[in-house]
Amino acid sequence: MPKADLLEFFDAPSDTPFLIEHVSEEFTSVCPKTGHPDFGHVTLRYEPAAVCVELKSLKLYYQSFRNEGIFYEAVTNRIRDDLAQAMSPRWLQIVTDWKGRGGIRSRIIASHGAVPAAWARG
Amino acid sequence: MPKADLLEFFDAPSDTPFLIEHVSEEFTSVCPKTGHPDFGHVTLRYEPAAVCVELKSLKLYYQSFRNEGIFYEAVTNRIRDDLAQAMSPRWLQIVTDWKGRGGIRSRIIASHGAVPAAWARG
Amino acid sequence: MPKADLLEFFDAPSDTPFLIEHVSEEFTSVCPKTGHPDFGHVTLRYEPAAVCVELKSLKLYYQSFRNEGIFYEAVTNRIRDDLAQAMSPRWLQIVTDWKGRGGIRSRIIASHGAVPAAWARG
Amino acid sequence: MPKADLLEFFDAPSDTPFLIEHVSEEFTSVCPKTGHPDFGHVTLRYEPAAVCVELKSLKLYYQSFRNEGIFYEAVTNRIRDDLAQAMSPRWLQIVTDWKGRGGIRSRIIASHGAVPAAWARG
Amino acid sequence: MPKADLLEFFDAPSDTPFLIEHVSEEFTSVCPKTGHPDFGHVTLRYEPAAVCVELKSLKLYYQSFRNEGIFYEAVTNRIRDDLAQAMSPRWLQIVTDWKGRGGIRSRIIASHGAVPAAWARG
Amino acid sequence: MPKADLLEFFDAPSDTPFLIEHVSEEFTSVCPKTGHPDFGHVTLRYEPAAVCVELKSLKLYYQSFRNEGIFYEAVTNRIRDDLAQAMSPRWLQIVTDWKGRGGIRSRIIASHGAVPAAWARG
Amino acid sequence: MPKADLLEFFDAPSDTPFLIEHVSEEFTSVCPKTGHPDFGHVTLRYEPAAVCVELKSLKLYYQSFRNEGIFYEAVTNRIRDDLAQAMSPRWLQIVTDWKGRGGIRSRIIASHGAVPAAWARG
Amino acid sequence: MPKADLLEFFDAPSDTPFLIEHVSEEFTSVCPKTGHPDFGHVTLRYEPAAVCVELKSLKLYYQSFRNEGIFYEAVTNRIRDDLAQAMSPRWLQIVTDWKGRGGIRSRIIASHGAVPAAWARG
Amino acid sequence: MPKADLLEFFDAPSDTPFLIEHVSEEFTSVCPKTGHPDFGHVTLRYEPAAVCVELKSLKLYYQSFRNEGIFYEAVTNRIRDDLAQAMSPRWLQIVTDWKGRGGIRSRIIASHGAVPAAWARG
Amino acid sequence: MPKADLLEFFDAPSDTPFLIEHVSEEFTSVCPKTGHPDFGHVTLRYEPAAVCVELKSLKLYYQSFRNEGIFYEAVTNRIRDDLAQAMSPRWLQIVTDWKGRGGIRSRIIASHGAVPAAWARG
Repeated sequence: MPKADLLEFFDAPSDTPFLIEHVSEEFTSVCPKTGHPDFGHVTLRYEPAAVCVELKSLKLYYQSFRNEGIFYEAVTNRIRDDLAQAMSPRWLQIVTDWKGRGGIRSRIIASHGAVPAAWARG
Repeated sequence: MPKADLLEFFDAPSDTPFLIEHVSEEFTSVCPKTGHPDFGHVTLRYEPAAVCVELKSLKLYYQSFRNEGIFYEAVTNRIRDDLAQAMSPRWLQIVTDWKGRGGIRSRIIASHGAVPAAWARG
Repeated sequence: MPKADLLEFFDAPSDTPFLIEHVSEEFTSVCPKTGHPDFGHVTLRYEPAAVCVELKSLKLYYQSFRNEGIFYEAVTNRIRDDLAQAMSPRWLQIVTDWKGRGGIRSRIIASHGAVPAAWARG
Repeated sequence: MPKADLLEFFDAPSDTPFLIEHVSEEFTSVCPKTGHPDFGHVTLRYEPAAVCVELKSLKLYYQSFRNEGIFYEAVTNRIRDDLAQAMSPRWLQIVTDWKGRGGIRSRIIASHGAVPAAWARG
Repeated sequence: MPKADLLEFFDAPSDTPFLIEHVSEEFTSVCPKTGHPDFGHVTLRYEPAAVCVELKSLKLYYQSFRNEGIFYEAVTNRIRDDLAQAMSPRWLQIVTDWKGRGGIRSRIIASHGAVPAAWARG
Repeated sequence: MPKADLLEFFDAPSDTPFLIEHVSEEFTSVCPKTGHPDFGHVTLRYEPAAVCVELKSLKLYYQSFRNEGIFYEAVTNRIRDDLAQAMSPRWLQIVTDWKGRGGIRSRIIASHGAVPAAWARG
Repeated sequence: MPKADLLEFFDAPSDTPFLIEHVSEEFTSVCPKTGHPDFGHVTLRYEPAAVCVELKSLKLYYQSFRNEGIFYEAVTNRIRDDLAQAMSPRWLQIVTDWKGRGGIRSRIIASHGAVPAAWARG
Repeated sequence: MPKADLLEFFDAPSDTPFLIEHVSEEFTSVCPKTGHPDFGHVTLRYEPAAVCVELKSLKLYYQSFRNEGIFYEAVTNRIRDDLAQAMSPRWLQIVTDWKGRGGIRSRIIASHGAVPAAWARG
Repeated sequence: MPKADLLEFFDAPSDTPFLIEHVSEEFTSVCPKTGHPDFGHVTLRYEPAAVCVELKSLKLYYQSFRNEGIFYEAVTNRIRDDLAQAMSPRWLQIVTDWKGRGGIRSRIIASHGAVPAAWARG
Repeated sequence: MPKADLLEFFDAPSDTPFLIEHVSEEFTSVCPKTGHPDFGHVTLRYEPAAVCVELKSLKLYYQSFRNEGIFYEAVTNRIRDDLAQAMSPRWLQIVTDWKGRGGIRSRIIASHGAVPAAWARG
């Protein structure tokens, strides 16, 4: 089972709002229908309120999906919920990009809060 | 004939609005005027209301256009109509990209509902 | 002389607004100043009102500029005027991209009507 | 010295607003501090009011900076001022992109007037 | 320690607002947790009020982080603070892009002031 | 069934050896095992002896595989055999590139005769 | 443990020598030292003697490394040995490309037999 | 008719063998079968014996094909013959690359003399 | 000083010759003339005889150049010598790629032994 | 006039043969026919015998062509001759790449000595 308790956090280094993006290109889970592995990229974007997620703990949390049977849509919403609950960020977005299955590649986007204006350019 | 009854659906895994994009790079139909095959990419983007389209059924639905004589513009509007009717999504957009004919390549965009703000960035 | 009467049209397959883009990478005319040929890409984007332009007739219309002496800016406005007059679209835009002359490459954009919101993303 | 009097103009071929972009990838001037040559790309974008700049004269004007000692920021503002004064366009923008110095590459943007809505997409 | 007093400035060459971007692809600091070096790109964008930062002094300032133990988020906020304090620009943005650690690559964005409209396109 | 008798030929325009390459990016056949369509690119390279293949007839010959159940390896060898037999070229090579199945993309190369030295560079 | 007995084969469709390449972009195993997952691309190139490897069985064979602790160099040699023993090809080459660890990305190449001349171009 | 007498030459600036490549991306002729224009890139590579082709005259020679009805293969051999006869180079190669017709893009290579070793790398 | 004694080795997993490439994109040293940091990519390619270099120790060895004043050419020969002496490989090659200085970017290649035939393709 | 006496050299750091490549993307001279500036990239590759060219002196030597009227072919042979004479390298190659004139871009290659085998790969 994905383990949200692996996640660790540290205090944001500034009160001035800023934005963080972490892109993991090494995510894999298992298709609950066929049992075959799925491979994707997971992008986390957020504006921290009080805390930031520690990078190594984020990696371990993602690794806990490795042998989990779970659909694309559920992975995306699950990560959004786990991180939003643990960090209470001002804004957070999860974008997952999945390699093709049957000639179709997919992207799922789940957000928490409204997009900050400063993110619109950069 | 394209077969909308091939499409299958599953319950959206979250009530929080989120967005889904499926890109098929293996679409082919037939030009009704010349009888020659057309090749294109079909991008489906939508914000689900209650249900999501199942990926393998989407592939089979697209395959049902394989020997159908139908223009670019009609393919695009037909897919939009079939999926919008079957899923009643909050928003849906079909973008088709067609390889060149006579040195001209084409893109057709048909939408259902207004673009969600969250889609503007991602 | 460019021949707008080569253009043919067919009824739009849907009343729901949609967008069409045709990119021709094989456009050539002649510089009226130097007599040397110019080479460019011509992009036509429009939201049809009642009719769509037929693709082969569009190609023939573009070919009628082949030995015409005409500046970049005039080509772009001429195509915009010919197509806007013949189709009365809700919106139409012509973008021409010209290979370098004297180390300078150029793009000209001419529009008819206001950009539809649905075009802002896609 | 850069020579604005090299610039020549011709009447805009249409009263309908349209946009023009000229990209020169062969611009060079001299750093006034080190005496070493600087190399950059200069992009001119504008919406003509009554006149358009003639392409060959633009090239000669750019060439007049070749042995001029002048900073990036000054080049950009100078070109903006020279062209805005000579053409009185509805809108004009100069973007200069400079190859790296000391591992740092730079872009300067100077505008005259407000960005036209039609330019936002294209 | 990073040395903000290395920074030098010169008077902005124009009162008309304009924008400047400097991209350094040769930034390195040290991870305070593991002691291993971090490598990143640092993008500075700003609209000067009265002064512009001198390019060579910016390079030396960046070099002063070379053997400093400091997290990604802190680097980004530190550079933003140092430059905003020294230049009092109308707007300033720091974007840092870091190569992958544990299969995750990161981007941090910190701003000072509101994004100027003219920056939205270019 | 693929129809080699669709192929037409014309006399080579020169006795001096020369090389020809035709790349078709719109090839589709059917997997005999799953019944699903396969999509690939087919590259034909050859040094003509007496005749060259006519381009439109080559297109029609490729289209005759559209609803044929046939494996990648067999398609490649079949095209090689059909063209080598009909043209008796000095050298001929077929390269097929197939989009991914189950996360694996494939290339098959089948040749007739020895690679001409002149092909090694160009 | 990697399971070579998952591999299935079919008769080569031609006696004329030809070449096959299968690229899998979804390979993962586990680092035996750190316990962290490794991600790589595995390219198999071969000239069949009597049999070809069946694509779905190749996928399942690759999947059997998923939770195996094994170094890059050993993965590459193991796949080479398993496939060379099972197919007795005229030539076979395994190329593995591994994403970065500690800022270093790696490629390993293991071959069986001498490179066929026909492979040098294609 | 293509006009070889437009070609002009100048003395090679060195007796030491060297190589020259000119790539024209603005070549157009007419398909003698359909009457539609063809667009291609023409690459000339040669090792001069006594003379080099003057660049502007080469441009004018290429322009003389503009309204000529001539097949890809004939264009390529014709240019090879015209230039080889006029320059008597030590080696010469013409490569033409043609945009797609019916979904097929083509390259033709015609040579005069044997490839110099020095050309194999560079 | 660069520390070759940081390097660790493990037994090659196969007696059959194979090839290994490690690309480090995070190398930095210091220019002995100017005192400014240099940034480069270091590619190590080798055919092991008895031992392979351990990846983490290679990283630490590269890091030991961080504050070393040493020219491009000397870095390359030094790494070649250190690794060739410690591993006695059948073949080894070091390629260093350096970002631009004064508008010039550089590559240095130093080898030990003759290039294996199997490396020519892959 | 180009000034070969600006070139400085230092002793090669190793007796083992190795290769050096310097790519300058900021070369400009003047066309002696039209008086317009030419812009190109100059690549120097060589295997040193006893000395290596110092990078800054190479830059200054290239800069001495800035206002020199000289053809592409002559620039290339001139640089080859100046460097070969001054360094007496085992092998040396100059490749110049010139931006388009009249829609034609050019490359000139001039060598001194035979290509070393080790250069064929890397």
